[in-house]
Formats: sequence, C-alpha cells, structure tokens
Amino acid sequence: MSTPFPWQEPPADCELPIWRYTRNPIINRNPFPGVAKIYNSAVTPFDGAYAGVFRAEYRTGMSHLHVGRSADGIHWDFAPAPIPVTAGADEPAFDYGYDPRLCRVGEEYFITWCNGYHGPTIGLASTRDFKNFTQLENAFLPCNRNGVLFPRKINGHYAILSRPSDQGHTPFGDIFYSVSPDLTHWGQHRFVMGAGPEWWQAKKIGAGPNPIETPAGWLLIYHGVCGTCNGFIYSAGLALLDLERPWHVIKRCPGYIMAPEEPYEVTGSVPNVAFPSSALVDAATGRVAFYYGAADTVTGLAFSTVDRLLDYVNTHGK
Amino acid sequence: MSTPFPWQEPPADCELPIWRYTRNPIINRNPFPGVAKIYNSAVTPFDGAYAGVFRAEYRTGMSHLHVGRSADGIHWDFAPAPIPVTAGADEPAFDYGYDPRLCRVGEEYFITWCNGYHGPTIGLASTRDFKNFTQLENAFLPCNRNGVLFPRKINGHYAILSRPSDQGHTPFGDIFYSVSPDLTHWGQHRFVMGAGPEWWQAKKIGAGPNPIETPAGWLLIYHGVCGTCNGFIYSAGLALLDLERPWHVIKRCPGYIMAPEEPYEVTGSVPNVAFPSSALVDAATGRVAFYYGAADTVTGLAFSTVDRLLDYVNTHGK
Amino acid sequence: MSTPFPWQEPPADCELPIWRYTRNPIINRNPFPGVAKIYNSAVTPFDGAYAGVFRAEYRTGMSHLHVGRSADGIHWDFAPAPIPVTAGADEPAFDYGYDPRLCRVGEEYFITWCNGYHGPTIGLASTRDFKNFTQLENAFLPCNRNGVLFPRKINGHYAILSRPSDQGHTPFGDIFYSVSPDLTHWGQHRFVMGAGPEWWQAKKIGAGPNPIETPAGWLLIYHGVCGTCNGFIYSAGLALLDLERPWHVIKRCPGYIMAPEEPYEVTGSVPNVAFPSSALVDAATGRVAFYYGAADTVTGLAFSTVDRLLDYVNTHGK
Amino acid sequence: MSTPFPWQEPPADCELPIWRYTRNPIINRNPFPGVAKIYNSAVTPFDGAYAGVFRAEYRTGMSHLHVGRSADGIHWDFAPAPIPVTAGADEPAFDYGYDPRLCRVGEEYFITWCNGYHGPTIGLASTRDFKNFTQLENAFLPCNRNGVLFPRKINGHYAILSRPSDQGHTPFGDIFYSVSPDLTHWGQHRFVMGAGPEWWQAKKIGAGPNPIETPAGWLLIYHGVCGTCNGFIYSAGLALLDLERPWHVIKRCPGYIMAPEEPYEVTGSVPNVAFPSSALVDAATGRVAFYYGAADTVTGLAFSTVDRLLDYVNTHGK
Amino acid sequence: MSTPFPWQEPPADCELPIWRYTRNPIINRNPFPGVAKIYNSAVTPFDGAYAGVFRAEYRTGMSHLHVGRSADGIHWDFAPAPIPVTAGADEPAFDYGYDPRLCRVGEEYFITWCNGYHGPTIGLASTRDFKNFTQLENAFLPCNRNGVLFPRKINGHYAILSRPSDQGHTPFGDIFYSVSPDLTHWGQHRFVMGAGPEWWQAKKIGAGPNPIETPAGWLLIYHGVCGTCNGFIYSAGLALLDLERPWHVIKRCPGYIMAPEEPYEVTGSVPNVAFPSSALVDAATGRVAFYYGAADTVTGLAFSTVDRLLDYVNTHGK
Amino acid sequence: MSTPFPWQEPPADCELPIWRYTRNPIINRNPFPGVAKIYNSAVTPFDGAYAGVFRAEYRTGMSHLHVGRSADGIHWDFAPAPIPVTAGADEPAFDYGYDPRLCRVGEEYFITWCNGYHGPTIGLASTRDFKNFTQLENAFLPCNRNGVLFPRKINGHYAILSRPSDQGHTPFGDIFYSVSPDLTHWGQHRFVMGAGPEWWQAKKIGAGPNPIETPAGWLLIYHGVCGTCNGFIYSAGLALLDLERPWHVIKRCPGYIMAPEEPYEVTGSVPNVAFPSSALVDAATGRVAFYYGAADTVTGLAFSTVDRLLDYVNTHGK
Repeated sequence: MSTPFPWQEPPADCELPIWRYTRNPIINRNPFPGVAKIYNSAVTPFDGAYAGVFRAEYRTGMSHLHVGRSADGIHWDFAPAPIPVTAGADEPAFDYGYDPRLCRVGEEYFITWCNGYHGPTIGLASTRDFKNFTQLENAFLPCNRNGVLFPRKINGHYAILSRPSDQGHTPFGDIFYSVSPDLTHWGQHRFVMGAGPEWWQAKKIGAGPNPIETPAGWLLIYHGVCGTCNGFIYSAGLALLDLERPWHVIKRCPGYIMAPEEPYEVTGSVPNVAFPSSALVDAATGRVAFYYGAADTVTGLAFSTVDRLLDYVNTHGK
Repeated sequence: MSTPFPWQEPPADCELPIWRYTRNPIINRNPFPGVAKIYNSAVTPFDGAYAGVFRAEYRTGMSHLHVGRSADGIHWDFAPAPIPVTAGADEPAFDYGYDPRLCRVGEEYFITWCNGYHGPTIGLASTRDFKNFTQLENAFLPCNRNGVLFPRKINGHYAILSRPSDQGHTPFGDIFYSVSPDLTHWGQHRFVMGAGPEWWQAKKIGAGPNPIETPAGWLLIYHGVCGTCNGFIYSAGLALLDLERPWHVIKRCPGYIMAPEEPYEVTGSVPNVAFPSSALVDAATGRVAFYYGAADTVTGLAFSTVDRLLDYVNTHGK
Repeated sequence: MSTPFPWQEPPADCELPIWRYTRNPIINRNPFPGVAKIYNSAVTPFDGAYAGVFRAEYRTGMSHLHVGRSADGIHWDFAPAPIPVTAGADEPAFDYGYDPRLCRVGEEYFITWCNGYHGPTIGLASTRDFKNFTQLENAFLPCNRNGVLFPRKINGHYAILSRPSDQGHTPFGDIFYSVSPDLTHWGQHRFVMGAGPEWWQAKKIGAGPNPIETPAGWLLIYHGVCGTCNGFIYSAGLALLDLERPWHVIKRCPGYIMAPEEPYEVTGSVPNVAFPSSALVDAATGRVAFYYGAADTVTGLAFSTVDRLLDYVNTHGK
Repeated sequence: MSTPFPWQEPPADCELPIWRYTRNPIINRNPFPGVAKIYNSAVTPFDGAYAGVFRAEYRTGMSHLHVGRSADGIHWDFAPAPIPVTAGADEPAFDYGYDPRLCRVGEEYFITWCNGYHGPTIGLASTRDFKNFTQLENAFLPCNRNGVLFPRKINGHYAILSRPSDQGHTPFGDIFYSVSPDLTHWGQHRFVMGAGPEWWQAKKIGAGPNPIETPAGWLLIYHGVCGTCNGFIYSAGLALLDLERPWHVIKRCPGYIMAPEEPYEVTGSVPNVAFPSSALVDAATGRVAFYYGAADTVTGLAFSTVDRLLDYVNTHGK
Repeated sequence: MSTPFPWQEPPADCELPIWRYTRNPIINRNPFPGVAKIYNSAVTPFDGAYAGVFRAEYRTGMSHLHVGRSADGIHWDFAPAPIPVTAGADEPAFDYGYDPRLCRVGEEYFITWCNGYHGPTIGLASTRDFKNFTQLENAFLPCNRNGVLFPRKINGHYAILSRPSDQGHTPFGDIFYSVSPDLTHWGQHRFVMGAGPEWWQAKKIGAGPNPIETPAGWLLIYHGVCGTCNGFIYSAGLALLDLERPWHVIKRCPGYIMAPEEPYEVTGSVPNVAFPSSALVDAATGRVAFYYGAADTVTGLAFSTVDRLLDYVNTHGK
Repeated sequence: MSTPFPWQEPPADCELPIWRYTRNPIINRNPFPGVAKIYNSAVTPFDGAYAGVFRAEYRTGMSHLHVGRSADGIHWDFAPAPIPVTAGADEPAFDYGYDPRLCRVGEEYFITWCNGYHGPTIGLASTRDFKNFTQLENAFLPCNRNGVLFPRKINGHYAILSRPSDQGHTPFGDIFYSVSPDLTHWGQHRFVMGAGPEWWQAKKIGAGPNPIETPAGWLLIYHGVCGTCNGFIYSAGLALLDLERPWHVIKRCPGYIMAPEEPYEVTGSVPNVAFPSSALVDAATGRVAFYYGAADTVTGLAFSTVDRLLDYVNTHGK
C-alpha cells in the first residue's frame, strides 16, 4: 500500500495556482513541551512515510532543528531533542539553526540550514536514516541565508542556491547559484535573480523549497519581501529556471502566487509572513504539497500540481 | 426616484461623531481577477448613481486606478482595466497611481492621486463621463502626497491641500494650501496645520476627503499618524477651516474621531490603518458617508451627519 | 468577611507557571468616555477592597493616570479625572504620565510612573487615601522608565529598580538598582541584569510588578523585548533576586513565562505586547494575580502562586 | 573706463576647463564683526561695479543674506545688516536664508535662496538698486533647495531650476525645471537630470550659478555629491541644456570639472566642499569668473571661458 | 615667590572675549611612550604649582586618567601609570575613564569623569595629594557624560552639572543640575538649559570647566554641538547662572565664543572639535586660562579675564 | 647589479616598529591625465625592477586597475589604460575594481581585488608578464572585500584571507580564512580574528599586504577601523598567524602600529585613513617596505624589518 499523499482538491474558484489546506495550520503554537513554535521547516518522503527537519523555536527564542515523523504528512511527531550535528576537531562549532531545507541527492538526505558561525551562514549535514547525521563544512562565508540544494548534480557538480545577507533583518537580498565538486569547496558563483522590480518582492528574495525538476526547467518557489511602514510582508513567488544552467531564468511571474491573508498568517510573532520552505511531489499524479511557515509562528500546508505551476508560470511569467 | 444614499443610523451609545457600517468591509480582498486589494479610494454621485476611482493593488504590489460604478454606494462593479491617463507629448510619463481623491468642480470631475514622476507627486486629471480622462500637469514637484482639491474655486482660484513628503514612508508631514489660476501653475503656498502635538497625530497628517463646505467653514477630515515600536497607526481627525482663507484653522479636535479598532483595521497588510479618503454628502438630510481604507487591505464605510461633525468640532475643537 | 481575591485555577495542562484569566481582557477598549484604552496599570489591596492607578490613554494619544476602585479586582470603576499630582514651587512641572506602578511601603502607597520632564523619567508620588496625592522629586535624571519600588526598606533605605532609556522606543535597556535615605536623593547604583542573551529578551528588559518577597529571595517578573523585522515583542520573564542585596541575581529563567499569544495580545495598537505591571499576592494562600497590558490596548489578568513561581525559577533558572 | 573683470590666465598644464584663483580664498573666516563665515554666495555686475548677495553665517550658526559691493569682484565690502526681506500681511514669515543665487531678468535683479518656511524652500525677492527689496511668494512647497533662475524668460515664462529635498542633510536630489507666468504660480514641472551614475555625483546634484546662455545651449555648472564613510564630497560638474526646452540635456560630462583639493577646500566646518554658486561672464572676451563656497567656511574664485566650457562639454560630455 | 600663571595678552583686534595661546597646542601627539594623544583634560593649582588629571588615549584607543604636574601650567610631566582608582568590595568595577574634570571643594580635590559601568556614567573620586585617590560611588545611572562639580556647596549640598546621554555618539544633550547631601545619593534634578535654538548648539550641549563664581553669578563655559553632513562641530559657549539657584539661567550668549578654526582644531582624529574642559582663575588679576581639547588629538590653551567674560555675557547674552 | 630596494633608516627615537618615508606621499593627486588619485595599491618585484597594480580613481569617481612600473619602487610610470580583465563566455561581467592586492604563488602573479558583481566581491586574475591577464572565477559570493592570498600553498591548497562585508560602508568586518584546490571552488572557511576589543579596531578589520612568512609564523599587517562622531579612522595593526593553520592567531598586538597623523593622512577625500595594502621584503637584509593608501587620496611608503616586526609582536602581542 502506498504512502498517503497530503492532498485536497482546489476550491472551485481558485484563481491562483496554489491553494491552502482548509485545516491549517497543521502545526500550532506550543507543539510540544518547551517549544513555542514550529515553522519554516522541511520534509521528505522516507521509508514509506515522511520525515522532516523542523525549526523549533524554544521559549528562549532560540531555534533548534528537530526531527519529525509522520505517516500522512499532516500529523507529526517530534523528537524531543535537537538533531545532534557536531563539528569535527578543528572545525567550526555552531550554536543555533533555523530555516532548514531538506534535499535527497542520490541515496543521501542533505540538510541545509541557517547556521551560526560568526554570523548566519549555510550549514550542511547529511543523513541516511534521520538518526545519525554527519555535519559537513559550511558552504559559504557568513553572512548567508536560505541555502537550497538542487535534488541532483548538475554538470557533475552539486548545486545550491543561496542569498547573501547581513547580520540583521537584511533589507536586501538576491538569489545566487554556486556549485561544488565535493560538497566542501564552492565556486562559479552566478547571479540568478534579484529583488524587484515589483513591489511585493522589492526588498529581498530567497529560494524556498528545493527546485522541482520538470522537462521545461526547474520550478522555483521563492519568497519575496516588501517593506511597509509597519514591517515586512513575505509572499511566495514562482519562477522557471533553465535545467542545465539554472542561473538562466526562463520565466518569472510578476505577481505573487500566495500572500499572507489568513488569520494565522497576518497575525503572530511576525505578522504577514508566508514562507514556503519545502515541497512534496507525487510523481504519479503531479500533485505538490507545500509546507510554509506562517507569521514565524505556525506551519501551514498548501497544494498545487506540477502542471498548474508550469501552466501558470508560462502564462503569467515574463 | 432619487438615488439611494448609503446609510445606517448610529448605534445607541455612539460617543464619537462617526460610526462604522455594520457590514464592513464593503470591498474585501481579491475583489476581482488579478487584483489583491482595493482601499484608499474615492467616490462621487454621478448620473443618478455613483462612480468612483479606486486604488487597485495588483498581485505585483503595484497600484493602479480603476473606475467603479455602483447603484447604492455599497456594492461596486469595477472596470477590469485601469484608467487610461496618458501624458501628452513632451510631458511627464507616469508609471503608477495610488490614494486617489475625486472632486467635482463645476461640471468637471477631477482626480488627484499620488503619481510617480521621479518620486511621488500629485497627479491631476479630469473627466466628465468617467470614460474619457484628460491628464493635466502634475501640480507639484516631487515628493508630495495626499493632494485634495476643494469643490469650488476660492477667491477665483482653484485650491488644493497637499502634504510634502519624501520618497519613503515619510516620518513627517504637514498640510499646506496652494492655489492656481489655471490648474497648471500653482503658488501662494500656505501652511495650514502640522503634525502633533497630540500623540495620535504626532508623526504626520494628511488631508482625507475633499473638504465639506458648511456655513461655518470647511469641515476637514484628515488622517493623523503616530509611530509605535511596531509601526505607524493611522487614525482620522477633524478640523474646521475658514471658508475664504482655508489656511486659517478655526477649530481642530485634539482627539481622533476614528482609530483602527475593528479586526479588518488592526490586521492586514499594514496593520492599524484607518484612512478616510472620500465622503458623500446628502444635501437634503446632511447625512455623510465616508469611505476609508482599512489596513491597506480593504475598504470600509462609516457615517455621520454634517450637524454632528460641526457640533463635535465646535464642542471638542481648540 | 474577607476581600475576594481574583482567582482561577490553572488549566489541567498548564506547563508554564502562569495562566491567563479565561474572560480576558478585563478592561476593554473605550472603558469610559474620552478614554481609548487602559493598559500597563497597577493595583493594590486598599480599605477592604482594591484601588489602582491606571494608564488611561485618551483619544489624543496622551496618557494620564486615573484612580480606579474595585470590589473584586476584576471589575473596575474609574475616576473621570486624572490624579492631581502637582509639583511644588520651583519644582519640575510635568505634562503626562504612563506605565504606573503602585507600592505600599509602611503606611503609605507610592506611585512611580514614567513622567515627562525634558524626557521620560521616574515620577514619584505618595497617598494614603487615593484621594490626596503628594508629589515628590523625580527619582532620576532623564531618560528613565519602569521605576519599580521594593515594598519595604532594604538596609534602612528605600530601594528602586529602574531602566535607563532614551527619548524614543529605546532599542536597549538593562535593570539597575538604586537606594535613597529620603526618597529625594538616590545613589549606590548597581547593575542588576541586562538584556539577552536569549533572543526573546535580547533588545531590552524592564521590571514589571513590585518584587514579591519570599524567604528565598525577591521574585521579579519583568518584561523582555526582542525585535523582529515587524517590530518588538514584549514577553514576561522571571528571576529571583537576593533579599538584602537585590542586585545579586540568584536565578533567572532563560525562557519567558508568558508571551503574547491571545488575539487581544497579538493584535492591537502595538501588536505582540504582554506587559506585566502589577501583582496582588494573597498571603494566606500564596495565590498571585498579575495585571498586564496587552498590545498597548487592553488589560489582562493572569494567575500563579508563589510556590509555583519559586519552584519554576528554581527548576528552570540559571 | 570699463569695470575690471576678475581674471587670471590658466596655468600652463591645465587639463580641466576651470582653474583656481591663486590668491584664494578671497573671503576668509571672520570677515566682519559678528560674522563667522561667508560662503555659497552670488554676485552680479551692477552700476559700473559689482554687487552681491552673500550667505553670512553668524556666530549663532544662523545664516542671513547681506549685500556686498566690490569694485573689482575680488575685494568686497559688506552691509552690516541683513537684507530687509519682509513678508506681506497674511504671507509667510521667514527666519533665515542661505545659499542665495542672483539673477538679472530684464531690468530687475532676483534673489532666490533657501528660505525657512516649515522646512527649507525657495525664497524669491527682487530689487533694482540693492537697497530696496520686494519679497515675492515662495516658489515651491517645502522642502526644496538650490533654486536657480534662468536669466531670461523662456517661451514667455519665467524659468527656474530647483532640487526637491528633505528637512535634513538630504541623501538624494535631482534637478527639476519649472515655469511661471507671473513669478507667483509655478508649474509644468520637468525632470532635467538626476544623481549618478558616476560615483562623484551619485548621492545628489543641484544647480550652481545661473545657466550661461550660448548659441549651443545653456551651460550649467552644478554640484554633484557623493557619500564616503567620512561624509559627503561636493564637486562641480558641467552640462549643456537645450535653449528652449532646458529639461533636455544635450551633453553632460561624466567626470567632475573641479573637486575639493586645496587646503581651504578639504578642511573647514564641512570638509571637502567646492560649491559653485555664481558666475560672471564678460561678454566681450567670453571670460567667466566663478564664485564658490569652500568647506562651508570661505569663498573662492575660479576661472574659465565660454569657449573652453563649450569645447569641454562637447568633447567629454555624453 | 608666587606661582607663574599661564598668560598672554589679547591680540589688538580681539572681538571675542577669549583668545588662543599663540604656541598651541601645548600637548602634542605621542606625548609619552605608549600614549597616542592627550586632550579633554583638567588642571588645578596645587602645592605652589599645578596638578592635573589627563585623558591619555593609549594606542589601543582606550583612554585612561593620568596625573600630570607642571610648574608653569604649560609644560607638563605625566605619570607613566594611570590613577589607581579602585572600587570597594561589592561596588562597581570600572574599565576606562575619559573627559575628566577636577574641582577643589574645601580641602579636597574631586575628579569627575566619564566612567564605564554598563554604559558611560559619572565617576567620582577624591584626593588631597594627587597620589592617593579614594573612589566614591558613581553619581548617576548610565548613560551620562560631562559631570562638572561646583567649587563649593550650595544651600548645604554638593552640586553638579551633568548631561544625560546614550551609549553612542549621542545626537541630543541638555544640561541638568543635581545635588547631594553626602556625595553618594543625588536628587532634586533640575533642567538648566538645553540644546539650541541657535544652530551651533542645536544638537547638544555640555558643561565645560567648573563654573567660575562671581558676584553676578556663576560663569559657565560649555560646549555646544551642531551636526553637519560631514560630522559634528564642537564650539564653546558662555552663560551666567544664578548663584544660589544655578538652574536659573540669568544670561546666555546666542553666539559661540570660540569655534574650531586653527589647523590643530579642524584636523585630527575628530575634526572640528574645540572642547573646553578646565579653567584656572588668578584671583588677584582676574585672569583666566582655559584648557581645551582640540580635534580629540591635542591640548590647547586660551585666555580671558573674569571681567571680559562678565561684560560679554551681560552685553551679548539673552 | 641588484634591484635597489626602497629604504630609509628609522629615526632615532622610533618607538613603533614602522616608520614613514620622509618624502611621502610618493604618488600625489592627479598623477596622470584623466586620473584624480592613486591609493590602496599593490606592488611586487618583477623582472629586475618593480611592477604594480594600482587603484586609479578617475574623475568620474569610478576606480579601475592600472599597471605601473618602477625601477626603484618609489617613482612609478603608469599604463594609460586599465588592465584588460575580461570574463569568459557565460561568466560574470565586471564593471569596476578597487583595492587590489598582488601575490606571487609559484611562477604566477595573482591579483585579487574588490570586484563589482551584484555587490563587491573578490575578483581574481593571474599574469606572468603584467601584459596578459587571465581572469578567474570570483572567489566568493558578494559581499566581500579585502581578499588577500598567501604566497604559497598551505597543505596543498591555495589559501586566502577575506572580509565578508555589505554593499555600503560596512560597519562590521572580521577576517576569515578559506582554501581552494583549484582557485575556482573555495571552502573550509575558518574565522581568524574579529574586530575589537580595542577601540582603534572596534568597528572592523581587514587584511593588508600578503602575509609575510617567517619561521615563527605569518606576519599579518592589517587595517583596523573605529567610528567617531565624525567618521571612521583606519589604522594599521600587527598579528602573527600559525604557519600551517593560519586561522590560529599566535599573537596580536592590542595597540596599532601606525595611525593617521600626517597632513596627507588626516585630510583628503576620506580623512584619517592609513591603509596598508602591499609589502616588499628584501630577503637578504630583512628590510620591509610597506605601501599604503592615505586618506583615499595619495600613496605613501613606510618601512620596517622582519626582525623588528617579529620582536614587536612577540613583545607586545597577546
């Protein structure tokens, strides 16, 4: 019997290519003892069910990465202790982790996350069983955030998107592409796309879930951020990248495909945040389930299909 | 049969001179395809019904001006394309429009709005049928916002209120009065009133609906803005200006007459915004219907009467 | 017959040592004519019932201090006029007051509040009947906020906590301890504890209710503030101070004990504020009732017991 | 006998089209009792000699406009009292003046300056004898600086360049063109040119002396400003504007034509400022004498010829 | 034989009441091994010669207080080690000191300085021999700078001027007056005078040398600071305070009496600083010698007489 | 005959381990046509003389890299056109270059510089003849500055120091170490040392000349920056790094070894900058000649010896 895929059909009047799960949020405040919130997290099919790496924000306000397991992708059980990622001798030691992404490349699952090393940078670790984790070298110098791997090697190299940033709330941010022969040394940095010109993404942008491979290119869901006088608004955008030269943007939608509108998105610790960070794709049906952090407070689920996304980016993208 | 005037009687315990429509907001998110929000807009009686010019914020985050029509002032139909305002040869070209005001002077209807020309400034256009629009010269150098015409000439000149500003969120702002013999050249600039001293309007102020003429003076509803550590709060204030020398403030209420309190005002893209931008006045009854943007997200309706406003400003104003 | 103490038993699954009153907020918006909000206020048992000093924010946005009376600590009647605190000849004159604290020392009740004198500083006044108030010298030079007295002399001196600040929203703030032989001259300033290192209190901290004396030390509830890209979040923390040398921190909890979560805390004029400012302690039972401002908009009530607080700070504190 | 024109031949190796007077500064610190500095001022031929309007900075730091007279354009006598510009009844009253320009149009001499009226704006006054001055309406709403008239009407209208700004040090600034039929009402605002793209003028630009008419167009000397980690640098640039449509830029030099290099330019109250504000042109020889403020402290003189300037802007401009 | 008093007669054309020593600076860069600069320091007659406490900035950039001795007030020998001020048990420990003042009250000499204790505050120490120093409690909570004692008790209390500030470069600052019965507890805080309205002192002001007692009142030399686009300018101002109620300002000069003009004042580590910090008064002749820091780099000397200062403040003050 | 090495003996009283060339600056303003300034540049012995890569700031304010040649290391001839570094097909294109370093590794000379690619980053190019240059991939993602190579491989990898920064004036900055097997992919990022704690280097630090190898470790001259109210001060510091693990700091001097003091260092376009960027070492004598930019305006020369530097860092370092 196959693993159940989280899914709801779109509402009848669904104008945008993405629709929310009607029972959102799927992970509420205070999900387990000591933890205030889980959001901006990442999941993957694993061993006939689902596994995930979650940004668990403790009551101290610090975030740590916890493993979660789920049979249906909706109801999750969390490990009470954070993932034991430990630097080797003479390697950087780390003190926090947030906004993880999760990517299977070959037989291994790689976690990338925002890692503290004299500023935020891209941490990297691998696992095969979600019990034992091997930490690799940080991919970049600080400051960097939103490091997102591609799910296969491209031209023989591992490939990653990232967003150079600063120590703070970072009022700027563009997406770059870099590659590595060995997951330790990175180079051939290419600019992919930048903030703006549209207002909803005028402040900064950053990659969301791992790019979804299609014959037409990599589907990239990303967050775009604008600044109002009462703070930032994080929405989700859609672009299509060239398969072999992903820094070539084939299409990019000028409008967002999801903006914070629901009560659990417009209120919370950081009002007006919808932050997509992971996607499941059902190869047989083309169904896609997105996981996104809402208001830096809870976790929501939204749906689409590969065809709808492709159709939308082709129709609306420039 | 006369045009129905949007109206509700005040609640029994109505302490302030303005009360909200109980079925607010009248224009919700996603009002028509491609448009995310309509707010900060302006209406007028027209041809036995109502016409309006609406700030329609697209999913790109850019705002454009759309015409709307309504039989009752509450339910609106919107034109799917923006108003075709086009600069003449060798005149400034524009790229966006927001926060429109609408003012009948004589037989013509004038739209003023925040127009993009090397910074925000006051755009000006006229129409007689809400189908054909003639764009005039911008009234001022950038940066300026909240240009609001008076509904008749004063001392033989067109008259306007405006608020010089900056390129950004503008942490300052006073109201000035200027006149023009020809709607092209403007001068005789006079300071009307400034931000503060009360805290709710300590950051900046700007004119709201077109001033309402009464024998006692011009009733001016305006927005006052204060800054908290989590952003600005936009409330509505009330003042009475001299009829022939409107830069003379006869009375000004130290307290606001409406502040964001309802769920649709305190949450949204810009929480805590109640932005009055238009008023209908029923000459026979003295009833007033205010249109206001809420949280830069939706449009609300509120009511008062000329007598209540005059009585309030006389009683509470200084 | 004894005075009823405001109280609710904790919910069954209460993980934190503090729980909210289920009928919060106890003081809603527009509590009495002319006043928009009451929050960040202070109460005390008095004359077989309860008296309080309340931050009443007028529609002008200015705050003034009003006396309130209550038979049950939950339902309050407010004086329509502010407390008549008047400076003596050749003494500083004041123009506003906010965030009052209330402390009985001996037979007198002392109000401390944020007082305007060339910047915010700590105002001080005494009363025995909540009708006649004697204003004393300001305790400190500007700028200072959150002055909180101890309920008895320590080593023969009056003792106070305060938080030096700046003229604005103050992106920093530590708690200091000072003493006075005469309530006029203050000195022997000692650093008690500072902002951070945990994120929820990384921006600034300030004392909340008057410290609660226990054999193990003074229980201090305080507010901790962090800054997100959409503004500050005010939460409540817990520490235990040495009885005779209160600038020695015995224990301090790394996690908050209450953070803004309820609708009336996460939305309002300043979203995401839970600001504890007063506590009643029932000596017989050890029950504690906390009053806190929510979102700078309404007043809430929360409960605990001395034993639970002590146990929590001993278990979780460092 | 003709009026002597201030002049020195260029040094032999003069690469740039402008060269300094070797006995600069011509007006030093403390030029007459009570006045600390004279800089950023303007002169004109008048009555067989020279007259000027000077920014005199008092020891209070406030600047006022004083008339000066000179037989040779180099040695100046200053009126001990400021120019008596007085607003009419019900007109704006002013409290300071700085950075004056001086322009003869027809038989009248017009002063434009930075005038205080709820922010800096463009003051305007006329004189025929440098004794009696008639103040006109301010040309624009605040905030605006560097208002510079053209020396003749263009298309039947008075014409002015100005630079909208803010209340403070203004980190932006472009040059606009506006016209007036009556010196009271202004309109038909046109963007002329903006800051950048070259680094020396990347922060802001503003018109300097009145444009110099040539058959090929208006020669415009302007200041360009860049921002270093240690403050702004003000240099001088050169452009050529269309004669009848001066908002059309025919040529603009990518490099500056004078940058602060001399000790009296790189040190002073505002280091690194060379601010050209006036020019004399000798019609017979084409000689040009520029007056410029140096370091907001002293006044310098520099020379060129119309032919050299035209040749340079044609050769180097884009 | 009497101690020589440092002195030069004024230049013939001396318009202002203060004139510089012609051989300034008296203490140059690199004054003794390990020390980069000495500036902003204080001196006093002592034991038939002069003693002083100097801000010595080490090559680390940290400042420490060193004793200096001089026979003529011009040539100084410095102790190689800093003053051993040591906090008592359970008292604040300090880590740096700058901008000292020195004041004899009765038989004791008191040093006040900017002391590091969780932010800058006013350190206080006493000595009778300039060898043994007793450190007292800090006078105020942080942040505070420029604490300047009066040279006698007033109304039976020690009296001090100070300027509440912030942790950084402090863009604000007014002078306050406080008193103490015991040099430990301070209170009765009174506002003396604030920044502005004149531009040269529009940003902040702070007391300079100890006030000089005259029958007409206390002569106060203070620094006033304005902000240009290229940084702050520190000049010196003059005021006359009431003898017994020094927070009453009798006269205050609208213009500065000394501004940075000399090369050693307009260049250095902090260009454009003239910072008076100490004064010697010759009782027999009324001569006054001022010591001032120049450009945070060197130490200068300037002269006046009590009569000239009194005459100037009476003539020019308001 | 050997190449003359630029050299002067130290002055008699030289307390610090570095002393200036008495005929500084060696490259003045306006060094050749079209170029305003040369500073922050790098040199190397080459072909029996000296070659260098120079930051030439044009009159546009843009900086480009020019080759220079010199027989004595003091008098330089510059190529009139910038170095032709050209990106390959599908590689980043660049538009400016500044602050070059120059490092021989094996038979090749490598230039690293601040390269414009969506923000400043580390450009890399190689040459063998100073005529033909091969541009390599940028070493890092933007934003980064002050990339400085080691003059030999370490543990088989190329090694570089760099300082992650931001788009602007960057108020922070630490030195990191990274390695590469192929000069294209970089990783194993290690923190070397950070800004502070001493004030002169409290804001940011960055590597200067290429590290100088000695048996005791790598001698690293670097710049340290502090922030005053009037801008940044750039001084030079000294540290000793472990030979094989250069991110291990053996010793670091708490005080600077050179700070801006000379007129050509404290005035200029960016006052108070002494920026060491290159060093020549005479193997036979141990003499060292440093090249440094002064005030972002001119180029100076300073001297030391390897023994003096080692002795100083061993004696004064921590």
